[in-house]
Amino acid sequence: MYQYRHPHPSVTADIVIFTLQDEQLKLLLIKRAVEPYKGQWALPGGFVRMDEDLDAAARRELAEETGISGVYLEQLYTFGAVDRDPRERVITVAYYALIPSDRIVLQAATDADEAGWFAMDALPALAFDHPAIVDMARQRLVAKLDYSTIAFQFMPETFTLTELQRVYEAIRQEVLDKRNFRKWVLALDQIEETGEMKRDTASRPAKLYRVRDRERVDIIK
Amino acid sequence: MYQYRHPHPSVTADIVIFTLQDEQLKLLLIKRAVEPYKGQWALPGGFVRMDEDLDAAARRELAEETGISGVYLEQLYTFGAVDRDPRERVITVAYYALIPSDRIVLQAATDADEAGWFAMDALPALAFDHPAIVDMARQRLVAKLDYSTIAFQFMPETFTLTELQRVYEAIRQEVLDKRNFRKWVLALDQIEETGEMKRDTASRPAKLYRVRDRERVDIIK
Repeated sequence: MYQYRHPHPSVTADIVIFTLQDEQLKLLLIKRAVEPYKGQWALPGGFVRMDEDLDAAARRELAEETGISGVYLEQLYTFGAVDRDPRERVITVAYYALIPSDRIVLQAATDADEAGWFAMDALPALAFDHPAIVDMARQRLVAKLDYSTIAFQFMPETFTLTELQRVYEAIRQEVLDKRNFRKWVLALDQIEETGEMKRDTASRPAKLYRVRDRERVDIIK
Repeated sequence: MYQYRHPHPSVTADIVIFTLQDEQLKLLLIKRAVEPYKGQWALPGGFVRMDEDLDAAARRELAEETGISGVYLEQLYTFGAVDRDPRERVITVAYYALIPSDRIVLQAATDADEAGWFAMDALPALAFDHPAIVDMARQRLVAKLDYSTIAFQFMPETFTLTELQRVYEAIRQEVLDKRNFRKWVLALDQIEETGEMKRDTASRPAKLYRVRDRERVDIIK
C-alpha cells in the first residue's frame, strides 16, 4: 500500500487516434470490458506510470492499442472535472495522434473487449467526458489545417494530389477547388514528386508525391 | 493518512500571469520560501484540491497571488516529466492569465517570501521546469496575436489607438506601421469610441476607445 498525508488524484493519458479511411475521418474506439461504463465505447487510454513521462504514457497506449509507433502525437488538453469519473478523482491528459491510412492495424487491447474505427459523423455513445475530448481534438485538427501541414501526416508513403485533396476535404467537410488546392499545396514546398505514376483502370495516370520530411510538421506563416 | 494500492502523482496548477507595464510584457514571479529551490523565483501555483476543477484551482491561485478575478485565463499545457520535481512525482497543469495594466496589484502570497513583476527579457533564474513553461506561454501568446483579439485583454478600461499599438509592439517585439495597424484593428470591429478624448501635455488629444465585449476573445478568421 502507498500512503500519503493528503489525498491524491489518479492521472491517465487518453488518446484520440485519427485516421482517414474511405475518404472519411475516423477515430479508434475500444469497448470497455470493465466498470464503469462496461460495454460502452471509449477512447483508448490508461494510467500514467510513476516512472514514465506523459508523452511516453500516450505513446505506450498508442502502441498497445494499434501496434503503431513513430506517428504524429500531440498533447491536446487536460480534463480534470471533479466528477468526470464515478470511481475516484481522475485527471486525464488527452492526446491526439494521426495515423497514415496505410498503417491502420488493430491489436487486441488488453483492457478492451473490442476495438474499431468509427467515422466522426457516426460515433456511438461514448463513456466519461470523452465526447468533449473528441470535440476538442477535432476542432484542433481543423484549426491546424489552416496554418500547418498537419494533414500530410495522414498520407501513405506515396499519394496523388487528388488523394491529398480528398483528405483536406474529408477533415474540413467541404469541397475544394482543384486548381487552387494544387497551387496552394505545391507552394508550401513540403511535398515532392517521386518520379512514379499511379496507374489504375478507373482514372488517368497521375503523378505520385511523397512528403519531403515526415517528422516535421511545419507551421505555415 | 490516505492509502492507495498503486503510487499516485501529485497534481499542481501553475500560472504564467502576464501584464503590460511601461510598454513591456511582464510576468509575475514569487520567491520560494520553502525547499526545494528555496529563495529562488518561480511561477505562482499550488496543489489542485480534490474537490476543485483544474480551472478553479488556477483561478484560486491567481486570486491568492494577485487578488484579481474575472480576467482571461487559459490552460496552456501539462508538464509531467518524471524528474521535474526533486521531491516526488508532480504533474503540473500550466495556465496563463492576462491582467489589464490598470488592475495590477500584489498581495502577500501565502507560500512566498516576495512577489514581483519581471520583464520577459530580464527574468531571473527560475525553479523547476518553469523556464520551459514560460517559453511556451510566450509562444502561445505571440501565436494568438495573429488570429485573435487576445491582446485586448491587456487594455485598461479606456485607451488610445497608440496605446493599443504599443501593446502589440511590446508582445511582438517589433515596430508596426501606424496607419496599417489602425486600419487592421478598426476593421476587426471589436473596439468602439467612448466619445471621450485623452488629453495630456505631451501629445495631441487622442480618441479614447474601449473593448466592445471584454468577455469574448474572438478568433479572427
